[in-house]
Amino acid sequence: MSLAVTDAIAANRAALAMIKEEPFNAEAPHAALRDPITSTDEHYVRSNFALPEHDGTLHVAGAVGTALRLTLDDLRAMPAVEHAVTLECAGNGRLDTRPLPAGEPWGGYAVSTAYWKGARLADVLAQARPGPDGAELRCEGADHGKYHLSSVLEDVDDLTFVRSLPLAHAADPAAEILIAYEMNGEPLRPDHGAPFRLVVPHWYAVASVKWLSRLDVLTEPFVGEFQTGHYIYQWPDRPFEPVTHMRVRARITDPAPETTIPAGTCTIRGKAWSGAGPITSVGLSFIGESDWSPAVVEPPKGPYQWQDWHYTWEATPGRHSLRARATDAAGNVQPDVPPWNRLGYGNNAIEISYVDVR
Amino acid sequence: MSLAVTDAIAANRAALAMIKEEPFNAEAPHAALRDPITSTDEHYVRSNFALPEHDGTLHVAGAVGTALRLTLDDLRAMPAVEHAVTLECAGNGRLDTRPLPAGEPWGGYAVSTAYWKGARLADVLAQARPGPDGAELRCEGADHGKYHLSSVLEDVDDLTFVRSLPLAHAADPAAEILIAYEMNGEPLRPDHGAPFRLVVPHWYAVASVKWLSRLDVLTEPFVGEFQTGHYIYQWPDRPFEPVTHMRVRARITDPAPETTIPAGTCTIRGKAWSGAGPITSVGLSFIGESDWSPAVVEPPKGPYQWQDWHYTWEATPGRHSLRARATDAAGNVQPDVPPWNRLGYGNNAIEISYVDVR
Repeated sequence: MSLAVTDAIAANRAALAMIKEEPFNAEAPHAALRDPITSTDEHYVRSNFALPEHDGTLHVAGAVGTALRLTLDDLRAMPAVEHAVTLECAGNGRLDTRPLPAGEPWGGYAVSTAYWKGARLADVLAQARPGPDGAELRCEGADHGKYHLSSVLEDVDDLTFVRSLPLAHAADPAAEILIAYEMNGEPLRPDHGAPFRLVVPHWYAVASVKWLSRLDVLTEPFVGEFQTGHYIYQWPDRPFEPVTHMRVRARITDPAPETTIPAGTCTIRGKAWSGAGPITSVGLSFIGESDWSPAVVEPPKGPYQWQDWHYTWEATPGRHSLRARATDAAGNVQPDVPPWNRLGYGNNAIEISYVDVR
Repeated sequence: MSLAVTDAIAANRAALAMIKEEPFNAEAPHAALRDPITSTDEHYVRSNFALPEHDGTLHVAGAVGTALRLTLDDLRAMPAVEHAVTLECAGNGRLDTRPLPAGEPWGGYAVSTAYWKGARLADVLAQARPGPDGAELRCEGADHGKYHLSSVLEDVDDLTFVRSLPLAHAADPAAEILIAYEMNGEPLRPDHGAPFRLVVPHWYAVASVKWLSRLDVLTEPFVGEFQTGHYIYQWPDRPFEPVTHMRVRARITDPAPETTIPAGTCTIRGKAWSGAGPITSVGLSFIGESDWSPAVVEPPKGPYQWQDWHYTWEATPGRHSLRARATDAAGNVQPDVPPWNRLGYGNNAIEISYVDVR
């Protein structure tokens, strides 16, 4: 069963840039990227199916010592953890990919940062006691319906949203994977996975299964449309790879792209993030320049959230292209043109914005 | 000597999107692409040097039977020809090229169509009687100054704007190359090459030398910064090629890109042009589609100007990517990603625009 879109749910969506009405997908407004924490009203929404009914319980089963049936109250009774976590859709920036792949036409604003509070997934798994032959954790959402299979891009009936995580990662307390029931201090809203969802720091948000209904410890690798069909880098010339960590990326938030600003001192500002570690540098470059001038990168406010950077610039009249390129602690650097993959995931190309200075 | 930028000249520039103040470079406003003929106020301007003084004479010399010294009155006394001609800067679309090359940061609006009236270059050359060993026509503008050499991208002093045309092309009456002295029914304005300029139909506008001051018939190929340094496709992996004819291209003018429109019947409109012949088809495609639906392409209103096309579309709520792909009579089709060249010329990639439908 799907949930009716009430007036309250529609009101929750009013501030967003709608990509698809049903299932509901929407980008954050551009200005939302300026804030350290995205308000819930402005947090992007990615859904693969219509809003589901959720019976309020989470089943934990499979190769475990103790199967569990947990309610929201059970989760709230466990030790609570809260983190600011940057979530980005793996398809963010698809519209800038050439040739244009199939998929939702995300511009560059399917990325947001919210406070997420919940129980640690590792604590839940510790209660269930996975067997020694456990390999992966199958994570099932309550959402289901018709879907385009990646292999044929045709509708099939009644697929359910299921993803898996490596069990070692899921069960690692240090990974700080949450079964979150609060977002920015309030109970989850329907569009964000009420009553509870996974929040997997550092990974593209496809891993953060919304409307979480079942966890099953598997002894074999999981095969499913959202694991091995979609959310796979389908390279034209080398073996396919799963979509996992967010790629290093910087965005320019100020001045807003394609606007006109007055000449004089201008502070260029933006965000940068990576799933592979903190941002260590952001370089700025203008058209015709082959080198990169270092921006000031603020230290991380937490381990799982984007960082602020800024750069002081003397803006002279005319059009100026602005490029910002981030490097992370693992040494990853944004490319000019990332390798193309069939479904358009992980586009972390250096952004080229321009401003007209008068 | 350069010309002072008077209040009148500044007023002529007010409607344009300025790229560089000095030398003055500016794109047409986006809405100007909707019109069949671009008003002079809205016609893009490309200048390599500051506005020059021009002494009002045109010298024709070199390997000719009769050297000439012509005034504006002399040119006006010759048979007059008027055509609507689409002129496009070879660097138009450079900002969408990845990696971003050096050069003026043109978006996609360094293209316009005006009525140009003047004497035929072929008629002038017939008076001068090129010798049988003539190979090229060296065309010199009055504009000169400091310039970045392509080979080093450093300033050198006092380069003059000079281009050449194959003599057979320049002397062919059917090529309808003009020494134009009127634009849209008025004497040329300083930014557009007063008192007269070349207008070379079908070629990127670099060939249409402004402030024309000298024509010399050469018996050897011309070597010069604007012929063999800049305005060369510098391919990374094959021999360099000169920039000549405009590549086939379509632009979407309506709905305006990245705007929100109401659901319902929407007429998508645009322009298309090619230097290799009339446009024979324009196809529309939306995200996830691999085929192209034919638009209605209006017949050419003249041999040298862009064509209108339109497509009736039922717009449903959500975000929709729009792609328009033109094919010309020579069989050229716009590519998804044109091969990259060092200075960023001839980017005729299929445009990907989007609209949000509410």
